Amino acid sequence: MSYDGTDFSGWARQPGRRTVQGVLEEALQRQPPGAAVPKSVVVAGRTDAGVHATGQVAHVDVVPLPPDTAARIPVDAKGIPDLTRMTGRWNRLLPGDARVLRAQVAAPGFDARFSAIRRHYRYRVSDAPWGVDPLRRNDTLAWGRPLSTDAMNEAARALLGLQDFAAYCKQREGGTTIRELQRLVWRRVDEHLVEVEVSADAFCHSMVRSLVGALLLVGDGRRGGDWPAEVLASGVRDSAVAPAHGLTLTAVDYPPDAELAARAEQTRNMRTSS
Amino acid sequence: MSYDGTDFSGWARQPGRRTVQGVLEEALQRQPPGAAVPKSVVVAGRTDAGVHATGQVAHVDVVPLPPDTAARIPVDAKGIPDLTRMTGRWNRLLPGDARVLRAQVAAPGFDARFSAIRRHYRYRVSDAPWGVDPLRRNDTLAWGRPLSTDAMNEAARALLGLQDFAAYCKQREGGTTIRELQRLVWRRVDEHLVEVEVSADAFCHSMVRSLVGALLLVGDGRRGGDWPAEVLASGVRDSAVAPAHGLTLTAVDYPPDAELAARAEQTRNMRTSS
Repeated sequence: MSYDGTDFSGWARQPGRRTVQGVLEEALQRQPPGAAVPKSVVVAGRTDAGVHATGQVAHVDVVPLPPDTAARIPVDAKGIPDLTRMTGRWNRLLPGDARVLRAQVAAPGFDARFSAIRRHYRYRVSDAPWGVDPLRRNDTLAWGRPLSTDAMNEAARALLGLQDFAAYCKQREGGTTIRELQRLVWRRVDEHLVEVEVSADAFCHSMVRSLVGALLLVGDGRRGGDWPAEVLASGVRDSAVAPAHGLTLTAVDYPPDAELAARAEQTRNMRTSS
Repeated sequence: MSYDGTDFSGWARQPGRRTVQGVLEEALQRQPPGAAVPKSVVVAGRTDAGVHATGQVAHVDVVPLPPDTAARIPVDAKGIPDLTRMTGRWNRLLPGDARVLRAQVAAPGFDARFSAIRRHYRYRVSDAPWGVDPLRRNDTLAWGRPLSTDAMNEAARALLGLQDFAAYCKQREGGTTIRELQRLVWRRVDEHLVEVEVSADAFCHSMVRSLVGALLLVGDGRRGGDWPAEVLASGVRDSAVAPAHGLTLTAVDYPPDAELAARAEQTRNMRTSS
């Protein structure tokens, strides 16, 4: 899925609020006559309010229909409906700020959340003196001070690998804050725009935005290059979380189908016991 | 200037409507104490409702202050205020969907409208089956059918040069429809997005959107490659104008300063007599 998070109160369904899960489940409930109604949606990354996605992944459990059921959307011999037509239908039911890009039948054991082995995020920052391109103001932070991508990349090096990111996590009771940060690369897109791509096995809450918030202070020269690693070692937060609207979930990686069942079971046990 | 045209009723000031000229002139009126208040703004391209800009150009006439005037913004020996500071001030007064990117003192004889020798526009079209990327839905048309940039570029070739574009102009009483179309190039940006760049000495009303509307029908195969040129020759409109929100004014070209005065005078006479 792809969505503009601006007008959503995040992914997760909440009573009385407009959320991505909410509008998606509403579209899924309005199945054509004869089609099975899916159960609730499980997502790879429960994005916060204002965070966008271009490569979100979710799964739903459905009961395939007997092939002889009178259905408006054609079903194959296994009772699975034509997913191109189903996707077209969902997109007509969805508002313009949320799109289903593609749908497929998942391999046995697939779980959008527990099978995921890697998440990729992008954060966009304008360092133009005049603020941010009006056409991109919904997914780009206006920083105002000139940024050095070299300084930010240099400082990020010490953050990579398997570490305890407690200083860069919004603490939740009992959750582990040990994560493997696999990639964090800043690049200058044009004279006035920098972008960072961040990948990890998983992220704790607010982790990308906390890392970005710290590195921006290095990028504009207000902090030294060693400071983000010192904060990591101290285990104590020492800078602001960057605003949500610069952040986009771009992709989620999964293992080969054959490994799915074992992997999902293992992660599920790890998460629920930690 | 750069602006997101979505929430503006176009460039030109209109009573009771939110326009780019309106919000700009409002910001300019709120000059700091001691600074001269500029007169009304003259623009290179009066964009329609919903049309965006990343390179709009406008000029304002101001009376420089005597250098000894008590001013909050420093002025130089000629009485001209620090334009970097003035730009920062204007951007703090402007809403987020309009930015002044840069300001400079114009050469003698400069007229944002009558000195312009070339205008450049971009039109963005998504041909993804699922519609348009939610984050770009404000400046990208969702076409839905796969487009061939080769077919559109081939068909556009016969439209280039000095021609009577009556078939691609919204007729206004007495105006000439002869224009020189200097460039029209489609390119595929990614799997789901195509973009066209269009340049001319000047455009008549709705000309870019009319050309785009015709070429899209060639691009998806519903019309043959010769048809846009046949329409041009017939002088009669035969297709829909593409929606405003895909269109962005990207740049305006001006001649060297030495030629400004002569050029502006000449164009002004041509336009007002035609």
